[in-house]
Amino acid sequence: MASPQVAIPATAALNELSAVQIATKIARGETTCEAVTRDCIARIAAREGVVKAWVNLDQKHALDQARALDLGPRRGPLHGVPIGIKDTIDTFDMPTEMGSPIYRGNRPRSDASCVALLRRAGAVILGKTATCEFAGSAPPATANPHNAAHTPGGSSSGSAAAVADHMVPAALGTQTGGSILRPSSFCGVFGYKPTYNTINTMGTWPAADSIDTIGWLARSIEDIEMLMAVLRMQEPQRPRQPGSPPRIGVWRTDLWNTAQPETKMAVEDAAKRLANAGATVREFDLPDAFNGLHVVARSAIGFYERAACMAFVWDNKREMLSPQMQRYIENGHKISRDEYVAGLHRLDQCRGLLSEVFDEFDVLLAPCVPGEAPKGLEATGDPGMQAIWTALHTPTMTLPTHRGPNDLPVGIQLVAQRYEDDRLFACARWVWQTIGMPEMVGCRSQ
Amino acid sequence: MASPQVAIPATAALNELSAVQIATKIARGETTCEAVTRDCIARIAAREGVVKAWVNLDQKHALDQARALDLGPRRGPLHGVPIGIKDTIDTFDMPTEMGSPIYRGNRPRSDASCVALLRRAGAVILGKTATCEFAGSAPPATANPHNAAHTPGGSSSGSAAAVADHMVPAALGTQTGGSILRPSSFCGVFGYKPTYNTINTMGTWPAADSIDTIGWLARSIEDIEMLMAVLRMQEPQRPRQPGSPPRIGVWRTDLWNTAQPETKMAVEDAAKRLANAGATVREFDLPDAFNGLHVVARSAIGFYERAACMAFVWDNKREMLSPQMQRYIENGHKISRDEYVAGLHRLDQCRGLLSEVFDEFDVLLAPCVPGEAPKGLEATGDPGMQAIWTALHTPTMTLPTHRGPNDLPVGIQLVAQRYEDDRLFACARWVWQTIGMPEMVGCRSQ
Repeated sequence: MASPQVAIPATAALNELSAVQIATKIARGETTCEAVTRDCIARIAAREGVVKAWVNLDQKHALDQARALDLGPRRGPLHGVPIGIKDTIDTFDMPTEMGSPIYRGNRPRSDASCVALLRRAGAVILGKTATCEFAGSAPPATANPHNAAHTPGGSSSGSAAAVADHMVPAALGTQTGGSILRPSSFCGVFGYKPTYNTINTMGTWPAADSIDTIGWLARSIEDIEMLMAVLRMQEPQRPRQPGSPPRIGVWRTDLWNTAQPETKMAVEDAAKRLANAGATVREFDLPDAFNGLHVVARSAIGFYERAACMAFVWDNKREMLSPQMQRYIENGHKISRDEYVAGLHRLDQCRGLLSEVFDEFDVLLAPCVPGEAPKGLEATGDPGMQAIWTALHTPTMTLPTHRGPNDLPVGIQLVAQRYEDDRLFACARWVWQTIGMPEMVGCRSQ
Repeated sequence: MASPQVAIPATAALNELSAVQIATKIARGETTCEAVTRDCIARIAAREGVVKAWVNLDQKHALDQARALDLGPRRGPLHGVPIGIKDTIDTFDMPTEMGSPIYRGNRPRSDASCVALLRRAGAVILGKTATCEFAGSAPPATANPHNAAHTPGGSSSGSAAAVADHMVPAALGTQTGGSILRPSSFCGVFGYKPTYNTINTMGTWPAADSIDTIGWLARSIEDIEMLMAVLRMQEPQRPRQPGSPPRIGVWRTDLWNTAQPETKMAVEDAAKRLANAGATVREFDLPDAFNGLHVVARSAIGFYERAACMAFVWDNKREMLSPQMQRYIENGHKISRDEYVAGLHRLDQCRGLLSEVFDEFDVLLAPCVPGEAPKGLEATGDPGMQAIWTALHTPTMTLPTHRGPNDLPVGIQLVAQRYEDDRLFACARWVWQTIGMPEMVGCRSQ
């Protein structure tokens, strides 16, 4: 990836560069790991009082990592690239607190698999980003960098806000409902959730085992591809391009009527302009089994599995949980085993039915969020439109293509068949090159 | 389950009773939690020098738990029942060492989900059972209680040996290849692996995320049903009975030619006697896609996912790993992403094809192990015949129905459709009532 053709704006501060640009610049000897980390820390110092994206960031430790990389041989494709880590993901050298006082000061013995693989590739683990409590819905203090009166979304709140605010080029998140794509859409960055069970979750706090997925928040598709190569334990490849304009299926979902005008406009505008640019674009609908899938994912599956994985905390430290989490778990206790298994069956069935759709389409276009980030920091927005695809185990990405009435970002959502993550990248690149605008990515508030 | 009709032999030592019998006797006031735990500890004291099933067992702490239960109200269906926990499963009050010096003295902050649910139901967490290193293949010191010169199987070695030797009525295990069913078959107990992703794995060391499953080793089917009700967060039900003799499909698998005579005899004898007793028994075969499935599960999936989840250990403490584990991980690094994804696709495809088989059959009968437990403690036997079903995500159980030429146990294997665990229990009960013999369960060596 560190190839001569990577264009790097000479005037940009290092924290404004993408991960690919940073890696290239360091490999070319045009900057150092330390200088990059310093610029990220400077941006954080300037903006963290408003954004509140980080829960653990030891500047000295970050700079120590960077200096050690500068002194050693090139470790891999991420040599010197700072990365933020959602605080539900284990790091052996910094606390991992799950957004909960129950885990205050928790020091895991090992890195999570994904963190270890990033370090192996030379990343600087910059710090831990704020998360909703146990990747649920009780929000951290994080604000939307575009407008601090609005939620950044959640549960990967800090990862989205930090990336959007140019504090770090990319950050890890996790998604069980919509915890990567919603904050990405609200904060105007790219958010990507891989095919279920293809990125190792060792060392990541579970929310609902059967749908939990680790993914990325970043400011470019190229970055996501490079970062994914590292987590896949493969060499980074040349960015993928579709041979011809993609075949795009538009599904409005059963939640279309809950969408605000800006979301309807984003999907319809994208569909029209992509068709004009040569893509085959066709609307389709899915059988009744898909109606209310986000509810099944949230309740029969989500509540039930949450209640199971929180059993120890519930029995020993219940009073330290937020009211929201207490309700989740109480709801989980009311789900019968038969309802749970019926939910698993239903999702299996829909995964099978969805497969056929991809005989006709390379990628699907769908609404990502009901609209702009809602005002207020007490809730993180509605996960329904994102949760459908988490439940279906498909790879999915949001692209920061549109804005709403308050000039806040509204992303569209692209979805590919399970295991066809590379096709998703190729189609997303085509879509972005066709309708994307660099100034829509992230924000540069001072 | 603590119903008047549970028959309890008056003369048996308490450690010889099943979990259902223990729970019933305590509920009736005929014994105490402390007395049960004392008898288990006494059996361990007598036999542990030979069997070596336990890696952490603090007698005082076990008795403290039991006495606290005796002093309090009835907590649930397992009130006073001692349980062994495989040492790859987190316990907040005892070390969890993964069978590796790397995790020596490791004290998790929380119980694993499954352990917390057992405690909620009143179980005494007796101690931690020996495991192969990180649930892989480098064996612990554990011996087969039937003949200490033979392996107990692995990786749930200590769980199988402790249950077979009447040290504890039941123990938790995990299966990624054949780590529950093989040691169960070798030690002459019931071993059960549920449908994938239906028992929460929070707090359990991962071997290969996409197939890892928690399950049980016990001396009765009733015990497994009661224990599963607890992990499912449901009330124990009456033991299930099939309305009529089951429809049984016999699949010899592509490994039949590797089976020793005792395994062939066990499957053929069981098929014949079950047919004579009124079951519909028919042999069938599966498409070529099923050939070598155990190899796909072990290499493309198993090695690859192992390499991912061991990334931190590999990069930081490689020299503390066994040669076997080092080879696993090196093999994983050689699996390309394409091979891995092709493996995931292949398993998905076979899961779909297998579904059709269950239109015709309630349950499948298959070989469980190549033969008796091999001599020697340096290896734990071949996982192929068990691994097929782990990879297919189906629930599966081994029953201790037969013996081999050295009078060591040889189990048969019953398999049901995904999510049809209750049907598996019902069919297994019918099979056991038809061809099982109580004296074949476990061993009473002195």
